[in-house]
Amino acid sequence: MASPNALTSQTEDFPRWYQDVVAKAEMADNGPVRGTMVIRPYGYALWERIQAEMDARIKRAGAQNAYFPLFIPQEYFAREAEHVEGFSPELAVVTYAGGEELSEPVVVRPTSETVIGEFMAKWIQSHRDLPLLLNQWANVVRWELRPRLFLRSSEFLWQEGHTAHVSYEDAAAYAMRIHLEVYHDLLVNVMAVPAYVGIKPPSERFAGAINSLTCEGMMRDGKALQMTTSHELGQNFARAFNIVYQNEAGQSELCYTTSWGASTRLVGGLIMAHGDDRGLVVPPRMAPIQAVVVAVRDEPEVLEACASIEAALRAAGVATSVDRGRGSFGRRVTDWEIKGVPLRVEVGPRDLANGVVTVVRRDDGSKLVVSIDQLAARATELLDDLQRALLENARIRRDAATTDVETVEQAIEAAQTGFARIAWDRIGDEGEARLNDLAVSVRCIQRADGTTPDNPDEADLVAIVAKAY
Amino acid sequence: MASPNALTSQTEDFPRWYQDVVAKAEMADNGPVRGTMVIRPYGYALWERIQAEMDARIKRAGAQNAYFPLFIPQEYFAREAEHVEGFSPELAVVTYAGGEELSEPVVVRPTSETVIGEFMAKWIQSHRDLPLLLNQWANVVRWELRPRLFLRSSEFLWQEGHTAHVSYEDAAAYAMRIHLEVYHDLLVNVMAVPAYVGIKPPSERFAGAINSLTCEGMMRDGKALQMTTSHELGQNFARAFNIVYQNEAGQSELCYTTSWGASTRLVGGLIMAHGDDRGLVVPPRMAPIQAVVVAVRDEPEVLEACASIEAALRAAGVATSVDRGRGSFGRRVTDWEIKGVPLRVEVGPRDLANGVVTVVRRDDGSKLVVSIDQLAARATELLDDLQRALLENARIRRDAATTDVETVEQAIEAAQTGFARIAWDRIGDEGEARLNDLAVSVRCIQRADGTTPDNPDEADLVAIVAKAY
Repeated sequence: MASPNALTSQTEDFPRWYQDVVAKAEMADNGPVRGTMVIRPYGYALWERIQAEMDARIKRAGAQNAYFPLFIPQEYFAREAEHVEGFSPELAVVTYAGGEELSEPVVVRPTSETVIGEFMAKWIQSHRDLPLLLNQWANVVRWELRPRLFLRSSEFLWQEGHTAHVSYEDAAAYAMRIHLEVYHDLLVNVMAVPAYVGIKPPSERFAGAINSLTCEGMMRDGKALQMTTSHELGQNFARAFNIVYQNEAGQSELCYTTSWGASTRLVGGLIMAHGDDRGLVVPPRMAPIQAVVVAVRDEPEVLEACASIEAALRAAGVATSVDRGRGSFGRRVTDWEIKGVPLRVEVGPRDLANGVVTVVRRDDGSKLVVSIDQLAARATELLDDLQRALLENARIRRDAATTDVETVEQAIEAAQTGFARIAWDRIGDEGEARLNDLAVSVRCIQRADGTTPDNPDEADLVAIVAKAY
Repeated sequence: MASPNALTSQTEDFPRWYQDVVAKAEMADNGPVRGTMVIRPYGYALWERIQAEMDARIKRAGAQNAYFPLFIPQEYFAREAEHVEGFSPELAVVTYAGGEELSEPVVVRPTSETVIGEFMAKWIQSHRDLPLLLNQWANVVRWELRPRLFLRSSEFLWQEGHTAHVSYEDAAAYAMRIHLEVYHDLLVNVMAVPAYVGIKPPSERFAGAINSLTCEGMMRDGKALQMTTSHELGQNFARAFNIVYQNEAGQSELCYTTSWGASTRLVGGLIMAHGDDRGLVVPPRMAPIQAVVVAVRDEPEVLEACASIEAALRAAGVATSVDRGRGSFGRRVTDWEIKGVPLRVEVGPRDLANGVVTVVRRDDGSKLVVSIDQLAARATELLDDLQRALLENARIRRDAATTDVETVEQAIEAAQTGFARIAWDRIGDEGEARLNDLAVSVRCIQRADGTTPDNPDEADLVAIVAKAY
C-alpha cells in the first residue's frame, strides 16, 4: 500500500509542505516572468468551481458582469491620491506599443476601480439608473517581490464588483449582502471554510474606504488568510470620479459606492485550510473529481468493472474518473491522495468475485466494503457526509485554536499558534502598534456573537487577532 | 406605435449602422486608451453565452482549461522567427514595474503560443503524456491603429487551444474535430450562422502553420467575417520550443501541435449576421433575455399580470424580463427591438380583460394574440421556430448572395455585393494577387459538397472569394 509519500510534513515546515502540495498535485508552476504563475488544469479546475459558485451568487445578488480594459491611462491614478500611495510601487507600465514609444504610458490595471468609476460617471444620469451593480472577472497585475503561488503573485485572477447607490444605507446594505450571501456563504457551504466575519480596524481599511468587511479563514498552521473583502467607499470615490445623479427633485447628488473582490488566492486558502500530510483534501462540492475508481490490477475484467462503476457513479451525479494507470497501485493511490480526491473506489479481482468494492474516504482514511449495487447511493451519502465533516472539523480546529484573552500581551502569545479573541476596546492605537511590531494584526472586529457589526464604534465588540498570510 | 428608430439604415451606411447598434443596444463603448473596449453588460451577456456553449464543447472534445501568464519574456518571440514577423508591430511592451525600469522588458501576450510551448516541453516526457490538450480563456493585446468595437480592438477576449500529439494524423484529426464539433457546431446550432467551412489558401495561413481551417460567416452587407480558425502546426512549433517525447522504443521524437481560437469578434459577427434596420436580432439560444414582457400601460393590474406572466415563462425555462419601464410604450418597444430580444409580450388592459396577450416576433415582426393560459407553451414553440427561421433565412441569404463564377474577373465582380464560388485551380498565384489588389480574398477552399478538405492539393476543390472584415 501507499508508502509515506514524499511531501514535507506540515509540522516540520508548513511553507515547504504548501510548495510541495502545489507542485505534486500539479496545481501550478512559476511563470517565466518573476512572480507570475501558470495555473495547471487541476488547479484551474478548482478555480472554475469557485467561479461558477460565486458567479451564480453574484447574479442572484443582482449584479451584472461587464468587462473593462486592461490598460488604464496613468493620469487616472493621480485623481485619487490615496490610490497612488496604495499602488504606485506595484504598477506595471507599458511604454512601448504599435512599434513606437507611447506619448502617454499606460498602466496595466492593478484593480479597475478608476476606469469603472469613469464609466459609471458617464452611464449614471438619474436616480432611476441606481443602484448600478457591476462585476468583472479579470486578471490584474501588482508587481510582487516575494511571490508565492496562488497567495501572492504579480498577476492574479479575480472578480471585482463595483456598485453605485443613492444613499449611504443602500451602499452599506449591499456591501453587507455581498459579504454574507456571496462570500461567507461560498466559503462555508462550498469550500467548507468556517471563516470569521467582521470589519477591518480603521487602520487596515482599503485606501479610500470608510468601512471594509472581511472573511478571515484559519489555515492549518494557525495563521489567518484574508479570503474576501467588501468595501464601503462612502462618497470618496464618487467625488474623485464625479459620479453624480439627479435626485427626484432634480438636484445633482454624489453617489455612494462599494467595491468587493475575491481572487485565485482562495485556491491557496483551500489548500491550507484542509490539506494534511498526505496532500490536498478537497471538499466534495469543490472537487473536479469527486470519486476516482482505481483498478488494483491491470486485468481486463477489472478494467471492465471499473468502466461500468464509473458509468453508474456518473449517472448518480458523482464526478468520476477512472485510473487505468501506469505505475504501481501504491504509487497511484499516493498520487490521488495528494490531489485530495474525496472518495477512492478500489476495484480488485477478489472483491469483484464477491460483488463488492472498497471505498476509501480521503478525509479520515476510513475504508468501507460496499456492494457494487449500492455503490452509487452510498457514494452520494459519503460525499455529503464528507462535506459536512470537513466543515465541522475545521470549525472544531478553529475554535480549539482560538483563545479568549484579556491583554495585548496574551493576544501576542496566543497568536504564535492560533487566533486570539480580545475585547476591541482593550487594544487601542498603542496595542495595534505593539501587535504589528511582532507581525501580528487585528484580522477583524466582530460582535460577541460572531456576526459582522456595522461599524467599529458599536459597543462590546471583540477583535480576532492573529498572524496572517 | 414604434416610430422609425434612430438607427442609420444598413443600405445607407453599413459601418455606421453597426456603430449605432453597438452604442444604442448598450453593448460596448470605446475605452480610454486608444483601441481598447468596454464591454457593457448586454454585450458581455452575449459573450458569456458564447463562452458557456463553447466551453462545454471544448471539454467534450477532451481539452482541459489552464491559465498562463499575461507577461511573456521578449526573448520567447525571437525563437520562432515567423512569429516575430507576424506580430512585432502589434506588441505592447512593459518596461517599468515594481518601481523601477525592468532589466528585461516583458511583452503583453498577443497569443500564448510561445509560453504554452515552453511549458508543454516541460510537462511532456513520454508518449503516454500525449495527446496533451489545453485550452485557455484570456485577454490578449495586439495594438490596433484602426480599431472597431468587437471586430478589431487592441485588447480582446478569446479562448486559445494548444495541443500536442504523437503523429501528424492525430494532430490533423484533432484540429478538424475542433473545427467541426466545437466551432462550426456552435456557429450553426447556437448562433444560427451558416458559416462556410474550409481551409485557408497557403498564402493566408497563420505564421508557422502547415494548414489552417476556417469558418467564414456572411455578414448582411455581403462581406465575409473570419469567425474561427484552427491550425495544424506540424512539427514547426515543437522544433522551435523543443517539445519532444519518448516513443515506445525509447527514442526521442518531436511532437505535432495544433492551435485554435475564437474571440469577442464573434459578438460583432452575431450583430452583422442577423441585425436589421431595427437593430440587433438575437437567436433565442444566444439570448440573455428571450422574452420581454412590456406593460402597455403603467396600471397596477397590468403590472401584476406582467409579474405572473414572467413567473410562468420562467417556470417554462424562458429567460424572461419585465419592462415596468419609464418613457412611452413606443419608445420602450423601439429599445427592445434595438436589443434584438426574440419575443416581446405586450400586456394591455383590453387584452387582459379577454385573457390574452399579444406576442411579437423580433425576426419578422409578426404578431400573435395568445391566451395567457397557453403563453408558456406557445413561447417555447415560437422560440424554437425563431431559432430555426434565423438559420434558414441566413442560409437562403448566403446562397442567394453566393455566385458561381468561371474567372477571377467575375469573382471580383461578384465580391462587390456577396461571395463568389470558383474552381480553386482557376485562381493561381497571379489570380490571388489580382484579388488582393482589389481588397478581395480567398476566404476558404472547400470540397464541391461544401465540406472541409484535408489539404489544398485534393482534386476538384472550390474557393469561396469575398471582401472581408
